[in-house]
Amino acid sequence: MIHAFLLLAFLLSTTTPHVAAIDFCIADIKSAPTPAGYPCKSPSTVTVDDFVFSNFVEGKPNIFNFSFTPAFVDQFPAFNGLGLSASRFDIEVGGVVPLHTHADATEVIIMIQGSLTAGFITSDTNTVYQRTLSAGNIMVLPKGLLHFALNAGSQKASATVIFSGSVQPSVQLLDLALFGNNFDSALVAKTTFLDPEQIKKLKGVFKGTG
Amino acid sequence: MIHAFLLLAFLLSTTTPHVAAIDFCIADIKSAPTPAGYPCKSPSTVTVDDFVFSNFVEGKPNIFNFSFTPAFVDQFPAFNGLGLSASRFDIEVGGVVPLHTHADATEVIIMIQGSLTAGFITSDTNTVYQRTLSAGNIMVLPKGLLHFALNAGSQKASATVIFSGSVQPSVQLLDLALFGNNFDSALVAKTTFLDPEQIKKLKGVFKGTG
Amino acid sequence: MIHAFLLLAFLLSTTTPHVAAIDFCIADIKSAPTPAGYPCKSPSTVTVDDFVFSNFVEGKPNIFNFSFTPAFVDQFPAFNGLGLSASRFDIEVGGVVPLHTHADATEVIIMIQGSLTAGFITSDTNTVYQRTLSAGNIMVLPKGLLHFALNAGSQKASATVIFSGSVQPSVQLLDLALFGNNFDSALVAKTTFLDPEQIKKLKGVFKGTG
Amino acid sequence: MIHAFLLLAFLLSTTTPHVAAIDFCIADIKSAPTPAGYPCKSPSTVTVDDFVFSNFVEGKPNIFNFSFTPAFVDQFPAFNGLGLSASRFDIEVGGVVPLHTHADATEVIIMIQGSLTAGFITSDTNTVYQRTLSAGNIMVLPKGLLHFALNAGSQKASATVIFSGSVQPSVQLLDLALFGNNFDSALVAKTTFLDPEQIKKLKGVFKGTG
Amino acid sequence: MIHAFLLLAFLLSTTTPHVAAIDFCIADIKSAPTPAGYPCKSPSTVTVDDFVFSNFVEGKPNIFNFSFTPAFVDQFPAFNGLGLSASRFDIEVGGVVPLHTHADATEVIIMIQGSLTAGFITSDTNTVYQRTLSAGNIMVLPKGLLHFALNAGSQKASATVIFSGSVQPSVQLLDLALFGNNFDSALVAKTTFLDPEQIKKLKGVFKGTG
Amino acid sequence: MIHAFLLLAFLLSTTTPHVAAIDFCIADIKSAPTPAGYPCKSPSTVTVDDFVFSNFVEGKPNIFNFSFTPAFVDQFPAFNGLGLSASRFDIEVGGVVPLHTHADATEVIIMIQGSLTAGFITSDTNTVYQRTLSAGNIMVLPKGLLHFALNAGSQKASATVIFSGSVQPSVQLLDLALFGNNFDSALVAKTTFLDPEQIKKLKGVFKGTG
Repeated sequence: MIHAFLLLAFLLSTTTPHVAAIDFCIADIKSAPTPAGYPCKSPSTVTVDDFVFSNFVEGKPNIFNFSFTPAFVDQFPAFNGLGLSASRFDIEVGGVVPLHTHADATEVIIMIQGSLTAGFITSDTNTVYQRTLSAGNIMVLPKGLLHFALNAGSQKASATVIFSGSVQPSVQLLDLALFGNNFDSALVAKTTFLDPEQIKKLKGVFKGTG
Repeated sequence: MIHAFLLLAFLLSTTTPHVAAIDFCIADIKSAPTPAGYPCKSPSTVTVDDFVFSNFVEGKPNIFNFSFTPAFVDQFPAFNGLGLSASRFDIEVGGVVPLHTHADATEVIIMIQGSLTAGFITSDTNTVYQRTLSAGNIMVLPKGLLHFALNAGSQKASATVIFSGSVQPSVQLLDLALFGNNFDSALVAKTTFLDPEQIKKLKGVFKGTG
Repeated sequence: MIHAFLLLAFLLSTTTPHVAAIDFCIADIKSAPTPAGYPCKSPSTVTVDDFVFSNFVEGKPNIFNFSFTPAFVDQFPAFNGLGLSASRFDIEVGGVVPLHTHADATEVIIMIQGSLTAGFITSDTNTVYQRTLSAGNIMVLPKGLLHFALNAGSQKASATVIFSGSVQPSVQLLDLALFGNNFDSALVAKTTFLDPEQIKKLKGVFKGTG
Repeated sequence: MIHAFLLLAFLLSTTTPHVAAIDFCIADIKSAPTPAGYPCKSPSTVTVDDFVFSNFVEGKPNIFNFSFTPAFVDQFPAFNGLGLSASRFDIEVGGVVPLHTHADATEVIIMIQGSLTAGFITSDTNTVYQRTLSAGNIMVLPKGLLHFALNAGSQKASATVIFSGSVQPSVQLLDLALFGNNFDSALVAKTTFLDPEQIKKLKGVFKGTG
Repeated sequence: MIHAFLLLAFLLSTTTPHVAAIDFCIADIKSAPTPAGYPCKSPSTVTVDDFVFSNFVEGKPNIFNFSFTPAFVDQFPAFNGLGLSASRFDIEVGGVVPLHTHADATEVIIMIQGSLTAGFITSDTNTVYQRTLSAGNIMVLPKGLLHFALNAGSQKASATVIFSGSVQPSVQLLDLALFGNNFDSALVAKTTFLDPEQIKKLKGVFKGTG
Repeated sequence: MIHAFLLLAFLLSTTTPHVAAIDFCIADIKSAPTPAGYPCKSPSTVTVDDFVFSNFVEGKPNIFNFSFTPAFVDQFPAFNGLGLSASRFDIEVGGVVPLHTHADATEVIIMIQGSLTAGFITSDTNTVYQRTLSAGNIMVLPKGLLHFALNAGSQKASATVIFSGSVQPSVQLLDLALFGNNFDSALVAKTTFLDPEQIKKLKGVFKGTG
């Protein structure tokens, strides 16, 4: 009943007018981003490789004994416009992730193995919400609040961390913000009530000046 | 009381500082789109023609006995940033629009003439919501769900179809997705439970390979 | 220099006026949702337990030899308003996830172990984008498109699956939409071009009527 | 190969956990709306009738010789959360729609029959963009700008009008805002530069006081 | 315990991968805007000057005896993507801001000094909501509605005006829209019910033609 | 030509069908908020008072020698759904606003009088962007970043502060988050590298325990 030659005509007629059907918008990361994300890479140059990120593996531990492998939009342009990003996080026994914030992202910790103690501090009542997590646990750390994590267990802990709200989440590490730059020491003292000696000591550790 | 020469000064002074008042953002479809749409055409080159689409007419019926004339952002750049698009739809007696989905748009059928049977299938309980529509009826088909339409009446049916949620809605026709490409036949069988002979037959009809 | 009694006054004065600082909005899932999500649970009843989901574990395999454990807003109210959700996915050797769509969510597969072949079909050119994934891979399957997965490897495959765009993603399984309900068989035939015998057979398998 | 009793188990297991899959959110218009729309009607009470509006027909002409039949969320709760609404518009020969604005909606005029002259005025350069439309034409009138329409043709004109940006668009009719209320006449004069006699006359016509 | 040379390695390793952390998106106002705003200026060229606007001062009164100094995105690119803008507003005794609308912005008047009478007209019941404000008052004028202001006090009034919803709010002044352009006088009469003599007179005042 | 009795019919017919035109959505702050804000107060109970906030005045200085008067949605329900809020800020000579963040809001400082030194620290390069502001200056402090302010001038400084992005912005004061609660001291040490004596001292000052 359906004649093949008619079909061909149909196929052509239905695919031709849909020039710009936007199934996806892979980031063209060489162009300037906008508040809504990067311009889209031309669909004609997109292949399956654009949808796959292949380096989501454990990194080398840093001096805090954890590693962090980002899959943000700059590493994985398929996240463009999706409003989330991911990272692989591994932390050795005794490792600590110092207090920090993500200005524009809620953190979702999805445990893979080991035991991780994570906590955040609310802004209104300064309550510390803290929990020791293991495989099978997910924890949500609300956007923009100070939080930390540490491995108080007896084996390496690993997690997939999702950042909801940003394809390129910022990370503001408290110590680096206070002591790892040229923030004037007298001003640090005034705005934190820390003692000058304490500031001097940590400026030394974190290579700050001022 | 109001002196004209003062007025002139006022007119100049009020129009000059408003360099970029954005009453509209006509798509510059030659530039790369972003997740929020195309960059805006320069306002100084915009005329009334940019706000009018003149080809919203019945098209030629395809082999399914319906025609579809899109007014998407690529045809009508005034839709840029508005989050909707439109199409003119006409279907002959006996015509059928096979099962398909629009990934990013809720379909709103606004009947003009004739009688059209339209239906969609929900995802949770697989309920078929189906209705025969006539002039004076509007039907909403929720975003992303499989749906169909057919003319079981005795005269041509016509409708204005609005796509809410996208300026360039995608259309995924089930038969073309399964049989009109190089989708490996064994894989089609495995992921649909269709019999190999059925797949082979329809691959023949829809010009698929694999 | 800072007197403690003054401090106390300060603490009271700064915490008192911030009655409704919204650090988070845990879903009150007993209330009716709105298009933007559930109303917020009263902050005074929120504890750390509200931020932790403890059942993100492998489920029992179904007849397709895979299991799927959702952490959607109904299971994990902390996802309310975040625009994403998660699931634990495990698939035995030979298991297949039949073709399906998520109307309102982009799927992000984050491999944990084993080997998984996943693919999706674009709407414009009906291209099959397919890839065999292993640990260390992430794959993005764009919103609303038909996709599938299968374990063609030699061991169980496991993944964390993130749904970007919805706290309660819909799942429309093609076979259930066609054959697992009371969708009129003649209508299925007309809108899919499948043979009546094929439809009858699969209606039998999937317990459909009509 | 697939045993029916296993299937049944599967069907139950896949449908049970998806308690709140949100394919749609029909407005519960008896509850208070939020900035994102009305709460959703309970899915268990939704039928196909909720997706169909049956009164999209020509209304009775008013004294301006046009009729306007709204399908806004209060009349058609299926539009909840979609960000658009519709109306049927019919205008007799010589009819005029006086200058008005829609605060929160871009108007899209889709001509059905006859000839309609429509125009809007930009805010920066006060340019009048005006066009006489006929069947097959669509015109976009940007959000919030003063606009008008009139039938200068020789037969009744009809159109489907879509409001993009609002499920319940506001309509501010210039004459009613100035003359159809208790707006103090001296204040009207001061803020419009209209002559007192003109104001008095139109206050009389439009039943205003003050 | 923390060795400085290790720290240095850490600092480098944490800063290097974050190529595009988006703390801010200062407008590159020489590029074409998109519906979501201007592309971002390259972060490497951003200095503290980009975050400071230095000309938020009283302007020269116009013939209506008020001045208006905009800090919109074109003047202050730091507002890009924030969805608000600001202006400094000063009005002499007896000054009047004629009726006007902002299509895409809710106006928030924050009084600094003097006394200002402001009012807006609702669209549904044509109610005039009017209030005389003084220092310590904030008033919200909803998006897109006709509103006015005047100084009926005994000293200059000043306010900071915030526009919520737009980085470049439009201003449609009723008199200029009707009389300050080439809007055909017969058409003005038809669509406003103003008398031809009134139109002619104000066309003269506002330098309109037609 | 226009007969008054016809007009009356028109007025009734145009106002009657617009039952729910949403010109505004004043918060009903006694109901539970949603992720998009509070439900709307019934329009029939709204008066001009709902649009005016009358307490935007200088408060009593706290021990840091500044005062802060919020006009957030809980104080001023007219901000519901607008995505911004305001506060009046006054700081005595020598006053300091200690380091803090707003999780969900960009701060816009609009100077009224005096001289204020404000600064923020970026997350990627830990750069301190700092500037001394005076009347006529606006400064933008991006969302979620640590920032401070102090009055190093010779007179009181005053500013209007707008929070873009939230109707109820959170305020996380660093010292209170670290020392003004029961955050375990050993954990504070581990996650900040501060010395135990320093922590003990400031726990004493800020009334913390643990």
